[in-house]
Amino acid sequence: MKPHIITINRQYGSGGREVGEKLAAELGYAYYDKELIRRAVEESNIGAEFFEKEGEGLRDPLSYLLSFGLGATGRDEDSLPLTDRVFLVQARVIKQIASEGNCVIIGHCADYILNDRDDVLNIYIHSDWDSRVARVMRRNDLTEAEAISRIKKTDRSRALFYQQYTENRWGDAANYDISLSSSRFGIEGTMKLIENVVEYAG
Amino acid sequence: MKPHIITINRQYGSGGREVGEKLAAELGYAYYDKELIRRAVEESNIGAEFFEKEGEGLRDPLSYLLSFGLGATGRDEDSLPLTDRVFLVQARVIKQIASEGNCVIIGHCADYILNDRDDVLNIYIHSDWDSRVARVMRRNDLTEAEAISRIKKTDRSRALFYQQYTENRWGDAANYDISLSSSRFGIEGTMKLIENVVEYAG
Repeated sequence: MKPHIITINRQYGSGGREVGEKLAAELGYAYYDKELIRRAVEESNIGAEFFEKEGEGLRDPLSYLLSFGLGATGRDEDSLPLTDRVFLVQARVIKQIASEGNCVIIGHCADYILNDRDDVLNIYIHSDWDSRVARVMRRNDLTEAEAISRIKKTDRSRALFYQQYTENRWGDAANYDISLSSSRFGIEGTMKLIENVVEYAG
Repeated sequence: MKPHIITINRQYGSGGREVGEKLAAELGYAYYDKELIRRAVEESNIGAEFFEKEGEGLRDPLSYLLSFGLGATGRDEDSLPLTDRVFLVQARVIKQIASEGNCVIIGHCADYILNDRDDVLNIYIHSDWDSRVARVMRRNDLTEAEAISRIKKTDRSRALFYQQYTENRWGDAANYDISLSSSRFGIEGTMKLIENVVEYAG
């Protein structure tokens, strides 16, 4: 069966988000990254309802969403229950998005959240270290030292987040149907290879 | 540049060896697995010369080669220097094989040994747990418990061997250009997808 949903996890600085965006356009699939999932949470009643019920009176629980995948921490032990709740809200929204039609979803443990479906293709994009540093310097206008620091922080943050919720090891090939090096194949090449896999799996 | 050398690392029971064998036949590449590397070591003078020079008077140093990738242990601290020497012999033989023409090499840290070449494509094949157990039961005529025990031992052995010599984490997607699930795509499908990658990288 052709996969209706494609999840992409990626190393920070690998260009995986860009691959996903191009792939979605090429396949005519809807595209969801961090920003679009945040909007989907806002537009749905799931978040509001959920947080109201908890009676926490939080002004902006969604700001917590933004901290995921950004490498920002600032979260301490006390906030753990909240991050768990935020994860649950995201998970519900992702399940809803997936039920609405063909889509590409970036990050957010979507591979794990949707593992009860059999129409999902799970992809991991990585890249060699030098290419990641160069990309982050260029994209975020950072010095080499700043880029390295940001990559290390984000790697650690994503690995912890992924392991906490899925109990799997971040970056382990066995978590995904296919893993590709964007520095080996290029952004365009990586996208084309995935397109071929989608056709093949179809 | 089209890759002249394809290395395949694989989870025990994933059918990765079979994928490699079919791929080599399909591409017209020479094929080297454990048995063929053992023969290459025997046929070369590298091993003999090396062990004679060390003056260890070992009757069958090659039996140590066979213990790699088989999950057999029986090695203790004292044998470590010998395993290192065996690794060096294998590494030299693999470099020699690679210099002789297009080939597919299974296991043996060939990805790491050949990382100074730019005409190598590094592949990792994995599979879901149930498929691995079923394959090992069928192929080796084992009970489920025996198959599980053998898979666990071999996983541990390969991970230790790989980490010891490459300092990389076994099974980490980032070690390879591409990683594929043979349970998702099937043996034939996995082979075809790799063939497509070889063409693409060409």
